[in-house]
Amino acid sequence: MTKAINIQEKAHLITQYWQPKLIANFNDHDIRLAKIQGEFEWHFHEDTDEVFIVQKGNMIMHYRDASIALSQGDMIVVPKNKEHKPEAKEECMVMIIEKSGTLNTGNLKDSHRAVKDIEKI
Amino acid sequence: MTKAINIQEKAHLITQYWQPKLIANFNDHDIRLAKIQGEFEWHFHEDTDEVFIVQKGNMIMHYRDASIALSQGDMIVVPKNKEHKPEAKEECMVMIIEKSGTLNTGNLKDSHRAVKDIEKI
Repeated sequence: MTKAINIQEKAHLITQYWQPKLIANFNDHDIRLAKIQGEFEWHFHEDTDEVFIVQKGNMIMHYRDASIALSQGDMIVVPKNKEHKPEAKEECMVMIIEKSGTLNTGNLKDSHRAVKDIEKI
Repeated sequence: MTKAINIQEKAHLITQYWQPKLIANFNDHDIRLAKIQGEFEWHFHEDTDEVFIVQKGNMIMHYRDASIALSQGDMIVVPKNKEHKPEAKEECMVMIIEKSGTLNTGNLKDSHRAVKDIEKI
């Protein structure tokens, strides 16, 4: 790669909620961007920790025993196997870093929200 | 972890240039922050790709065959084994994502700029 990736330019390409897009790879990991609004489903990832970095807006990461509010510039690492449910009351753009091949719905392989092929933008 | 990490709060804790600090871990990787100014040394990492995400200011990533300008919100993935030299004409804050244990000076193990124990902040 001989060009910088501008995160905001990539974010502007995303129109649908809960449809993560790939913006870069490193060490068998993906850097993804997702536009989110509303509540996702409870799920977990058995193979990977998952980093969320809020780019714009606000979100809540729900765990079964806590709910963590995140604003622009906040990040959280959801540990492998920990059940979680992201929520955004209003539109939010978030960067997600996790192992390549990770299904967004984790253990919910047949969810209608499962995105099996992550598009590169 | 049941608390969000605020990147800017962490950045304010950093006083020295070229002294990366650890702010989070995931999947045997580090998320580091570094305040940089001036030119670093040419080096490469034989075990890891290295992601740079500019948080504030501007920097240049020099390769032997190209120089890439990065501003706030820009990112670049420096591939494993690719020689590179970061530079910032003025103070710049950058997030760096790479395998845990990566020496900041890569192959230059005895450089006076090598930080062998990355402090967690």
